[in-house]
Amino acid sequence: MHVPCHATTFDHSVKQILKIMAFLRFIFLLVLLNTSITYCQENHTPHIWKGPLVITYKENNEHQCFDEDLQLHCTSWRFAVEANNLGPWKTIPKECHHHVKDYILGKGYKFDIERVSKEAGAFAASHELSADGRDIWVFDVDETLLSNLPLYYEHSFGLEHLDSRDFYKWVEKGTAPAIQASLELYQEVFKLGYRIFLLTGRNNKHRDITIENLVCAGFHHWEKLIMRNPEDRAKLATIFKSEKRNEMVEEGYRIVGNSGDQWSDLFGSSMSIRSFKLPNPIYYIP
Amino acid sequence: MHVPCHATTFDHSVKQILKIMAFLRFIFLLVLLNTSITYCQENHTPHIWKGPLVITYKENNEHQCFDEDLQLHCTSWRFAVEANNLGPWKTIPKECHHHVKDYILGKGYKFDIERVSKEAGAFAASHELSADGRDIWVFDVDETLLSNLPLYYEHSFGLEHLDSRDFYKWVEKGTAPAIQASLELYQEVFKLGYRIFLLTGRNNKHRDITIENLVCAGFHHWEKLIMRNPEDRAKLATIFKSEKRNEMVEEGYRIVGNSGDQWSDLFGSSMSIRSFKLPNPIYYIP
Repeated sequence: MHVPCHATTFDHSVKQILKIMAFLRFIFLLVLLNTSITYCQENHTPHIWKGPLVITYKENNEHQCFDEDLQLHCTSWRFAVEANNLGPWKTIPKECHHHVKDYILGKGYKFDIERVSKEAGAFAASHELSADGRDIWVFDVDETLLSNLPLYYEHSFGLEHLDSRDFYKWVEKGTAPAIQASLELYQEVFKLGYRIFLLTGRNNKHRDITIENLVCAGFHHWEKLIMRNPEDRAKLATIFKSEKRNEMVEEGYRIVGNSGDQWSDLFGSSMSIRSFKLPNPIYYIP
Repeated sequence: MHVPCHATTFDHSVKQILKIMAFLRFIFLLVLLNTSITYCQENHTPHIWKGPLVITYKENNEHQCFDEDLQLHCTSWRFAVEANNLGPWKTIPKECHHHVKDYILGKGYKFDIERVSKEAGAFAASHELSADGRDIWVFDVDETLLSNLPLYYEHSFGLEHLDSRDFYKWVEKGTAPAIQASLELYQEVFKLGYRIFLLTGRNNKHRDITIENLVCAGFHHWEKLIMRNPEDRAKLATIFKSEKRNEMVEEGYRIVGNSGDQWSDLFGSSMSIRSFKLPNPIYYIP
């Protein structure tokens, strides 16, 4: 869509723009909250949701103005993340904190996620399924089906490293909302006749709450939910997930599609025919 | 680098910004021209360069103003290209023509290319080379070592599909300039002790001019230049390049790094330990 525009487009003051951004963030969080609650009510599993998702937005106006070189530098960093050009990284570059926050809470992240789902859906529909019912679609869980943004919001969107205890404390709440566009893709590939395998790096100790959270967020009908057992704990995600995909192939399944927010979800052995990389500029899993 | 900035940053009129962009483009083309000529003179191969690289910049001001949703839509499209989320595409989306042109001729493309080279160089230096001299780095040629931007400038930066006859007419000029950041990476990996393999989809009929162009642009000391022979012509690039990488591995080489602007340069069998995807929002090769 190309909307003709005018010179006055540039005439907003920084203050006005900040106000609009704050409003957009508020709307985003409201949608997140509504989406989550709606799924709970639809599925009649009120015991899962421990209460409304409350996020207090702390406005911080420092350095929110536009610096072209900084924006390009941070966009370039995000591109490098998404194209798998970076080596292992622990935290986002300090100078890109506001850029990443604005990307996540603004329209950029939403646009990118919706595009991935749209492309994946088009491919899923165009691919001719075999009659034997052995065509599968693999989904990762965190930042692919479920969003942990409420947690990362509290941890500066990747500026500080999150340790696994804090992550699992959050997991045990079972309140991670669905990523809307991924839920739609999930339902679409299921309807098309793919079998769905969930392959997550989450520890199997948190199996029950993970299932509850997934169901509560609207995900049903998966064939298998594969999680890390004690013997997998020391393995890199690429190795663990490759091994599990190898097993699927050995069992006679054909991995047609694979959706994940990390390259370690997608690369390795027994790769899918097409893989779909959801954006994630907050954390990196090797 | 985080430069403190002020509300006045937004107070440029569209006219002023267009002037700055036109100036940046002029500088870019001047640098391109100078770089190309410099290499020719350094290598004393004046017969290769058929004359100065003349590009007339045709300014077109329509629709050059800022439309946030359109920018996000086109940035999202570029992300999908770079993350390998798109299926085969022939031309760039019509509405993203100005976005792609501004990205290529502005600082974005330059920033992204420099980052890829920097990351690749850091990895190349950190990787411990084996004593047997069998560690190699694979480079693609077009839009990886050599830039065909002068050609794509004349063909609307991917808005119109370029047929192979027009491409090879350009190739036969032998005037494609080096991509500066890639030349630096190339020289760095060579100095580190990697053997360099060039693996290009170019037809072997154009071998002599390709060698002349590469040498003229500053690329020397490669181990092998692998091009498409008649029997490879119908193969997808992914297949052709995988077969050639398989041969390298069978010959006892270890593919440590692989640099290319297309996922078909990087994906497939006998993949490198780390691959580096240079940006290319202009064309797609399956």
